[in-house]
Amino acid sequence: MSDLEQIKIAVRNFTAERAWQPFHSPKNLAMALAGETGELVSLFQWLTEAQSRSLTPEQLADAADEIADVQMYLVALADQLGIGIADAVANKMVKNAQKYPADQFRGSARKYNDPPA
Amino acid sequence: MSDLEQIKIAVRNFTAERAWQPFHSPKNLAMALAGETGELVSLFQWLTEAQSRSLTPEQLADAADEIADVQMYLVALADQLGIGIADAVANKMVKNAQKYPADQFRGSARKYNDPPA
Amino acid sequence: MSDLEQIKIAVRNFTAERAWQPFHSPKNLAMALAGETGELVSLFQWLTEAQSRSLTPEQLADAADEIADVQMYLVALADQLGIGIADAVANKMVKNAQKYPADQFRGSARKYNDPPA
Amino acid sequence: MSDLEQIKIAVRNFTAERAWQPFHSPKNLAMALAGETGELVSLFQWLTEAQSRSLTPEQLADAADEIADVQMYLVALADQLGIGIADAVANKMVKNAQKYPADQFRGSARKYNDPPA
Repeated sequence: MSDLEQIKIAVRNFTAERAWQPFHSPKNLAMALAGETGELVSLFQWLTEAQSRSLTPEQLADAADEIADVQMYLVALADQLGIGIADAVANKMVKNAQKYPADQFRGSARKYNDPPA
Repeated sequence: MSDLEQIKIAVRNFTAERAWQPFHSPKNLAMALAGETGELVSLFQWLTEAQSRSLTPEQLADAADEIADVQMYLVALADQLGIGIADAVANKMVKNAQKYPADQFRGSARKYNDPPA
Repeated sequence: MSDLEQIKIAVRNFTAERAWQPFHSPKNLAMALAGETGELVSLFQWLTEAQSRSLTPEQLADAADEIADVQMYLVALADQLGIGIADAVANKMVKNAQKYPADQFRGSARKYNDPPA
Repeated sequence: MSDLEQIKIAVRNFTAERAWQPFHSPKNLAMALAGETGELVSLFQWLTEAQSRSLTPEQLADAADEIADVQMYLVALADQLGIGIADAVANKMVKNAQKYPADQFRGSARKYNDPPA
């Protein structure tokens, strides 16, 4: 079984064991995801970019926990909506490749609808 | 290869083809993740919980795209930090199970450090 | 003095007394704002809309604290950028009124570029 | 009238003219706030801290618009909850000063419950 499938099953079981399904509307799960993302981003808020590239072991453990929380709510949300994440990613990558042709955006962080510098 | 591994490889290639690695510090990727999560949550902001459970095909397609964007930045962030997402989720689930024992939190949305109602 | 001005002065003093100005780049303040917004949104994630309209005194106190944190970082960010919040709001309201003409959007939550139902 | 009061009145009128009050539960407004914060943080995601301190006029105009959107939803949320923002900020500043005594946190970005370096 794929790892996203495994996470989905584990999250389903965890939720069912606590009878939390009534709380897990897509709306609510999107909010929970936003809350966890806020915790993740706050880990990096006072770090320089260089510091963020070489976290201490404790910072790394915190980041791993927050990444896990975001991943679990993302899986739960996709599951509630009947969306397969791997397929959604494959589809979006095709769109992104059209939006950002490699030869026009090399080394540039501009938005796809901004003019080249 | 697992699907999270496949996404990691695809995101790495996409980034490398555009020479975007210098922008992809963990700090910046955490911000990009927050931005995409904001787009995802905004899809649900004016919907009732019931409406969020039965999206129109167009809303569902938008949600799939935003879920994909969140997933891709999450994978990119974990990759930059050298964190394996599947392992991080497995570890965090053990912690969550200790924080929220099933018999004490059944049907309750209270926080682990709040008293029972 | 206006109340946004007063908050600005108070935040400046608080920051200066701790010599935190080097951390307060606009980039970092935007991240801190995202983190606090995440805490605010998480207060509401498992509540129904009806419950969110009648918070308990404790929930209300938590919401007030998080609203204050968001307000302080928003003021700090605007201050670092030299943006006057009251003017920015006045300008944006004019744009929003053009984007959402009252007679075309009455009672509708659709986006300005979506067709009427 | 104070400027936060003025914004509150303007937001109330804007909302009433479009009959949008039914959408404006605190839960929904917290989500809208998270969405706008996501847009604000995304403006800074690929900028260095130095670049974020010297925005181009166009970037500055975008930032002003997003700051305005965040401010308006924050005011709307506080209004729905019956929370006075200026008072909430004053109260929270007292708590923050106790959490972060100036002499112990000078020049340090550590969290209040982390040990000094």
